[in-house]
Amino acid sequence: MAIPRKLSRDFGLICGDMPTGAKNTICDVEGVSVGHLTKIEGDLRTGFTAILPHQGNLFREKLIAGTEVINGFGKSAGLMQIDELGTLESPILLTNTFGVGTGINALCRRAIAENPDIGWSTGTVNPLVMECNDGYLSDIQAMALSEEDAFAALDAASSDFKQGSFGAGTGMSAFGFKGGIGSASRAFELDGKTYMLGTLVLSNFGKPGDLVLPDGRKPSPKDLSQTEERGSVIIVIATDVPLDSRQLKRIARRGGAGLARLGAYYGNGSGDIAVAFSTAQKIAHDQEGDFIARDCLVEGRIDILFKAAAETTQEAVLNSMIASPAMRGRGRQKRPSLADWL
Amino acid sequence: MAIPRKLSRDFGLICGDMPTGAKNTICDVEGVSVGHLTKIEGDLRTGFTAILPHQGNLFREKLIAGTEVINGFGKSAGLMQIDELGTLESPILLTNTFGVGTGINALCRRAIAENPDIGWSTGTVNPLVMECNDGYLSDIQAMALSEEDAFAALDAASSDFKQGSFGAGTGMSAFGFKGGIGSASRAFELDGKTYMLGTLVLSNFGKPGDLVLPDGRKPSPKDLSQTEERGSVIIVIATDVPLDSRQLKRIARRGGAGLARLGAYYGNGSGDIAVAFSTAQKIAHDQEGDFIARDCLVEGRIDILFKAAAETTQEAVLNSMIASPAMRGRGRQKRPSLADWL
Amino acid sequence: MAIPRKLSRDFGLICGDMPTGAKNTICDVEGVSVGHLTKIEGDLRTGFTAILPHQGNLFREKLIAGTEVINGFGKSAGLMQIDELGTLESPILLTNTFGVGTGINALCRRAIAENPDIGWSTGTVNPLVMECNDGYLSDIQAMALSEEDAFAALDAASSDFKQGSFGAGTGMSAFGFKGGIGSASRAFELDGKTYMLGTLVLSNFGKPGDLVLPDGRKPSPKDLSQTEERGSVIIVIATDVPLDSRQLKRIARRGGAGLARLGAYYGNGSGDIAVAFSTAQKIAHDQEGDFIARDCLVEGRIDILFKAAAETTQEAVLNSMIASPAMRGRGRQKRPSLADWL
Amino acid sequence: MAIPRKLSRDFGLICGDMPTGAKNTICDVEGVSVGHLTKIEGDLRTGFTAILPHQGNLFREKLIAGTEVINGFGKSAGLMQIDELGTLESPILLTNTFGVGTGINALCRRAIAENPDIGWSTGTVNPLVMECNDGYLSDIQAMALSEEDAFAALDAASSDFKQGSFGAGTGMSAFGFKGGIGSASRAFELDGKTYMLGTLVLSNFGKPGDLVLPDGRKPSPKDLSQTEERGSVIIVIATDVPLDSRQLKRIARRGGAGLARLGAYYGNGSGDIAVAFSTAQKIAHDQEGDFIARDCLVEGRIDILFKAAAETTQEAVLNSMIASPAMRGRGRQKRPSLADWL
Repeated sequence: MAIPRKLSRDFGLICGDMPTGAKNTICDVEGVSVGHLTKIEGDLRTGFTAILPHQGNLFREKLIAGTEVINGFGKSAGLMQIDELGTLESPILLTNTFGVGTGINALCRRAIAENPDIGWSTGTVNPLVMECNDGYLSDIQAMALSEEDAFAALDAASSDFKQGSFGAGTGMSAFGFKGGIGSASRAFELDGKTYMLGTLVLSNFGKPGDLVLPDGRKPSPKDLSQTEERGSVIIVIATDVPLDSRQLKRIARRGGAGLARLGAYYGNGSGDIAVAFSTAQKIAHDQEGDFIARDCLVEGRIDILFKAAAETTQEAVLNSMIASPAMRGRGRQKRPSLADWL
Repeated sequence: MAIPRKLSRDFGLICGDMPTGAKNTICDVEGVSVGHLTKIEGDLRTGFTAILPHQGNLFREKLIAGTEVINGFGKSAGLMQIDELGTLESPILLTNTFGVGTGINALCRRAIAENPDIGWSTGTVNPLVMECNDGYLSDIQAMALSEEDAFAALDAASSDFKQGSFGAGTGMSAFGFKGGIGSASRAFELDGKTYMLGTLVLSNFGKPGDLVLPDGRKPSPKDLSQTEERGSVIIVIATDVPLDSRQLKRIARRGGAGLARLGAYYGNGSGDIAVAFSTAQKIAHDQEGDFIARDCLVEGRIDILFKAAAETTQEAVLNSMIASPAMRGRGRQKRPSLADWL
Repeated sequence: MAIPRKLSRDFGLICGDMPTGAKNTICDVEGVSVGHLTKIEGDLRTGFTAILPHQGNLFREKLIAGTEVINGFGKSAGLMQIDELGTLESPILLTNTFGVGTGINALCRRAIAENPDIGWSTGTVNPLVMECNDGYLSDIQAMALSEEDAFAALDAASSDFKQGSFGAGTGMSAFGFKGGIGSASRAFELDGKTYMLGTLVLSNFGKPGDLVLPDGRKPSPKDLSQTEERGSVIIVIATDVPLDSRQLKRIARRGGAGLARLGAYYGNGSGDIAVAFSTAQKIAHDQEGDFIARDCLVEGRIDILFKAAAETTQEAVLNSMIASPAMRGRGRQKRPSLADWL
Repeated sequence: MAIPRKLSRDFGLICGDMPTGAKNTICDVEGVSVGHLTKIEGDLRTGFTAILPHQGNLFREKLIAGTEVINGFGKSAGLMQIDELGTLESPILLTNTFGVGTGINALCRRAIAENPDIGWSTGTVNPLVMECNDGYLSDIQAMALSEEDAFAALDAASSDFKQGSFGAGTGMSAFGFKGGIGSASRAFELDGKTYMLGTLVLSNFGKPGDLVLPDGRKPSPKDLSQTEERGSVIIVIATDVPLDSRQLKRIARRGGAGLARLGAYYGNGSGDIAVAFSTAQKIAHDQEGDFIARDCLVEGRIDILFKAAAETTQEAVLNSMIASPAMRGRGRQKRPSLADWL
């Protein structure tokens, strides 16, 4: 793992035509950091991935956010309050399906530690925990992740993180290949200034044989015995453009366009969820006055962000697969690497 | 009609405890005006009611808005785009169910006349036309309203309008009594300044026998032969508080609380629709830069608007009924007046 | 606790005019049972309440269900998948806000024990855990509930359960009085047969001074220092009428009408959530053929269920308050009993 | 126009791998018919396209239906009631944006003629009229379509209809090429019987330069001066599989996957709307009993319909473009034909 894994652009696979940010990850959006806790032991291939939308106290300084349920066969927690209030007030944890409860507990406990008024003299915190089922390669029934594992992922967050089979991505599968964590970003100008949109995905979706590359090739694993589209995909989109929650919901929806370009049709058994947030303005938990001044993108200029959301989602999924070497897991089951096919 | 009809407060019926605006109508929100075209001829008891959210060109200067479908058994047109873009760009027309097409045509034609670029060098306009079925008292099958009738309602708009059986309210029924157009407003302070929320309803809902007054009395018409909750109610809420579209949607939803306090349960056959808009800021159709500065209410201060929305909806419905004298219509069918019961 | 507490009807408070079922609780719907785990120790006033929608394996035999987010300031988990798939596949746990993670873990662990294929050869389970914040009377920050506590509530489920300050209701407040668990039911005829709709609420909402009784009285606690509508309310509606998920969602929405009749306007800080399910048909997890025959209520007959949902929600909230004696909790804070006011 | 235009398969362009129905149009679903009224006069390039979901009285015998707003910048009317009640009760009219009001009037008038109780002794009818803006090639401001034009389209409906620049498709554009009406179908087996899913689109979307063919080629018109994604697309999906409205909504959503595979990202200015209906069962307006027996697809078998919806939407758009010859319209503006590029 010392040598960085190749990504989709190293194989000449380009999604769309917009320029990337410097890192070509979600961390091109300033202030965003990502950390993993990877658990590979016995039959376990699982973990937590933490995304910190900014480096301060998120409960005290919330970010404007929006969500989109592309297909709701999933167990993610925390979306409802974001829909109602339009704000995100906790770090984001990604994990396996049966790790959601523990992820919630970890985020609650940490928020209480940082905000001694929570639940008493002020409201409670809304933890955002999203998941995919890594049960093909990992012993998901063991419910092996602990709150300490979640804290470790949160504490490991940095602006330089690994893609592929790390953290929540450790045991995931996509289109019959190994899936995991992937990311990508796009840069664009508004009012003469450069802005960023970056996306991170946890990929665990797609029926083997359905994958289409940007160059039209259709990679297929040798073993096509898995016939249903199973699993899920979580899409987290960050941008430094000032937007309201309705606009962020619209942007989140375009993550689905990126998935479809890869050959997906949002299968019945797939929990395909997108969340988008803007780092442009922090919304104080304790406001002094009754009004707050906010900048907002003019609606007619939003297409560039729609395009960036579709392109980065498509590329992030490819990166999640290409960065993941082949893996053998629970019961000797195996997933080949897309990189080896390429 | 020379003597103003009594309203609910004249009978000691008070909804909630917030103070009203000076007029106690939607026109307490500065810039809002309302006009009627009333058609009472032969078997017709129908019309148009126009609400101008501001007095300028709404296509060029849009208002932020939100909608809530309390029960969607209805044929209102124009809600979808408000949901997507969060803005209102046309006057609002209320009419009978089979007048919607003509109302749309009238609003399109007027918008084209005022904006010669519509549909060619810029986008098309989104007309907002909402309706109830006045077929109990009026020959709705005649489809008797014309575009000229709609223009007459638009041209009649003023800040001083009649409540009861006028305009779209002419032939409506509520809880077995005569229904129609009603309005109410509430005043409240934010950051030391007085703000207004005003509501106008077109009432045509409620099962006879279900009505509950604020003092607990249950007025019931003598003829209880109508056994289903039929009809609909349209709720238009205006405020001068700066809000985003998500907040306005939340406020619109509280219109339903006002209906429930009257004894309604949003019957299956009822199209119960609420639209809320803010006059605080005009959103230019042609923006020069890529960003726009907007003031927004701090979320934690929104309860006073929720309360005002519930109180004004409840009172506006009572006013719509009390201001309407008994009426005989198509086929000699009759609706008594709640005022006579009181 | 040996003497049964009085309920709203014992004080002559009648919500609506429909007849109740034999028990006047959610357990009038055959197969539904309810259990509590109550934790009153030191500063803790909390617990779990479990609702078993039927007495079999819910993952293998799902029920058709629908949800309604009346106001989404809440942390309930499991609603999204019910919206997407229209089925409920786990018992329902109610608890305090910071007990959600542990509730999820408990439901996952029990589902795995009962269904060894979960997460491996079949999909994962969708636990439904809903919550209110009992932090006024209880040390919610202690996160004191365990998975064993949840199992105890599940194991205690019977068709005869206590209302008031038990289980999840132990530390809740409503309109400045003591809140908690309440229930009510209504009976009605369809095609000549008697059907039931029963509702259970966890009440923790309402601004002191806003409560309105069915007879028009407005009970108010002496201490009106709590000025915001805080807290939440969870509404669980069961019926034996065959319905599809869209119809159940419509019924769940009418829970909001019941709340509004009590004087609520769905305050900003309140997580007001309703879930409705039908026990009429079990949907097998493992279907043999490609089609399933289902009975469905004719849409035009649904008003009787709308009315029952509104009436039972209103009465269940009153019962939750009247059945709860005054309580002193964390930091010597106190909630009076509505029964004492009456 | 005597010689049938070539379609995408004639150029070797295959979307997906499922087999088509016999006609490869929406009319492979038995009972569905389509008719055009085409108006090419002076600066007009417009019309109506009518889709009859079955050949009887739709108000008396409704079909189960679902809708999906992929992007809501549009003026379609009739979606709200389908969402609430889950049924379609009128023929579907497609037209230009400013033809919606007239389309509504035509559908109301015809429904009244066929059902003399409408609006009086029974409810009103919910007309479904959907639109795109053909203002680039046609004088949309003229509002030139009449109710008679709508009746002509309805009366022309047959199971054999023309694709390309006919009816509502006459003046439409897509990806800088000529757009219009296109269709496709897929056949599949359930419980040993062959079922059909057929799609018809009205294409008027896509930014020039963004189109991607199934073989990876990217056709681009020479004139790339149109820089925004403008216009809209309407997707109508029919199937003979028995489904409930929630399932049909899920299927409608997959139309968006088909659009994305063509290079679209649901641009801000695009009204992208999908409606899906099932012909498997007619829901009588006047039900005798309180219950109705319905067959329903087992949820876990729905992927084949998702896949068919994505494939047919993609192919129908290609057909709408390829079947349309180059056209010159209002102001000598011109759209080239994709067929000529191929």
